[in-house]
Amino acid sequence: MKKFRPIDRMSASLPTIRRLPAYLQVVRQAEADGVVVISGTTIAQELELEPIQVRKDLAVTGIIGKPRVGYVVKDLITALEHFLRWDVTHTAVVIGAGHLGTALLGHTEFRKNGLNVIAAFDTDVAKVGKRFHGIEVFSTDELSSYLTTHGVTLVILTIPAHVAQEICTKVIEAGVKAIWNFTSIKLKVPEGQTGVLIQKEDLSSGYAVLSVRA
Amino acid sequence: MKKFRPIDRMSASLPTIRRLPAYLQVVRQAEADGVVVISGTTIAQELELEPIQVRKDLAVTGIIGKPRVGYVVKDLITALEHFLRWDVTHTAVVIGAGHLGTALLGHTEFRKNGLNVIAAFDTDVAKVGKRFHGIEVFSTDELSSYLTTHGVTLVILTIPAHVAQEICTKVIEAGVKAIWNFTSIKLKVPEGQTGVLIQKEDLSSGYAVLSVRA
Repeated sequence: MKKFRPIDRMSASLPTIRRLPAYLQVVRQAEADGVVVISGTTIAQELELEPIQVRKDLAVTGIIGKPRVGYVVKDLITALEHFLRWDVTHTAVVIGAGHLGTALLGHTEFRKNGLNVIAAFDTDVAKVGKRFHGIEVFSTDELSSYLTTHGVTLVILTIPAHVAQEICTKVIEAGVKAIWNFTSIKLKVPEGQTGVLIQKEDLSSGYAVLSVRA
Repeated sequence: MKKFRPIDRMSASLPTIRRLPAYLQVVRQAEADGVVVISGTTIAQELELEPIQVRKDLAVTGIIGKPRVGYVVKDLITALEHFLRWDVTHTAVVIGAGHLGTALLGHTEFRKNGLNVIAAFDTDVAKVGKRFHGIEVFSTDELSSYLTTHGVTLVILTIPAHVAQEICTKVIEAGVKAIWNFTSIKLKVPEGQTGVLIQKEDLSSGYAVLSVRA
């Protein structure tokens, strides 16, 4: 019997993609608890979502559930990890070795999901050559050459806003297509560059939800 | 002429609320640039959103725009800040003075939006009594009494996952209704407690967008 359908990552909506890690966490926990089959309804209850929403979201991964039974936990984990491309390595660097950058260097949870941070960069000469969580800090002067020679595919920006666009442009010119923007400003892709994705992490949205509703 | 309509914060959707800080940032920048009136279309272009979306979102703040002209920048800032309740003080503490907690203590950008972090807490005796960015670290033993005596309305959790639910429960039992959850687990409100809002910041969603699309 077929377990998976072919997948089309480009057709999945951003909100769906953003929910998939939560599903994976629930299903991994179920596996750790010895659960073999899990229903969409159980996952929905755990995450306070509508069951129909969960089933539609999970369908993008190509998993085929059994009617009135649910999903084989092992297969669902495989499908989620494969769809998310968390079963392959993404070589990354952190630019800006301040508190937030250092916190992210120590965030080893991502490592099991394919995120392999191999270096940090900072303009502060006092930090260059030091190691945080085992990861060496290099001078920002070396950034462009490092990016092109080490197969870096993802850059994490934790630098001050006033230098963010300049560094972002440099990173894109070095061929990086995925930028995780933790700065406070919206970064722009320079004209003529295509296929670049900049994901902005904006803490002010989360704060807004709390300040409005609480 | 009337500038504002009455507002109903509970009727605004979460996605709308989450977009409001970005609007505020654009409009504050416009004010800094000397702009007096700004159109919804201009804001939409800046944020790569549909103009109709921007106008609908801004309507929740009670602002009344002028047809074919736009919004008075000063009034729009007032309306956004008031709706977000960023014009009043939210007294907060950070629990967990690791790298991420320390990074958030230094994230002074939120201060101008009403977030006043007055203390940090940690179980590590080596950290207790120290100050990060001027904010003192207290022992977690003192947490409950501190929360009730200092009028803390918002708690920021940057603690390891295995102690997160226990601390969360303690914080809610001390009367806190707004919890900003930076841990990797989904926290639950204890039975019998009402009106508590837990906002989970999940970096894995942002990573998912990058790993899938890049």
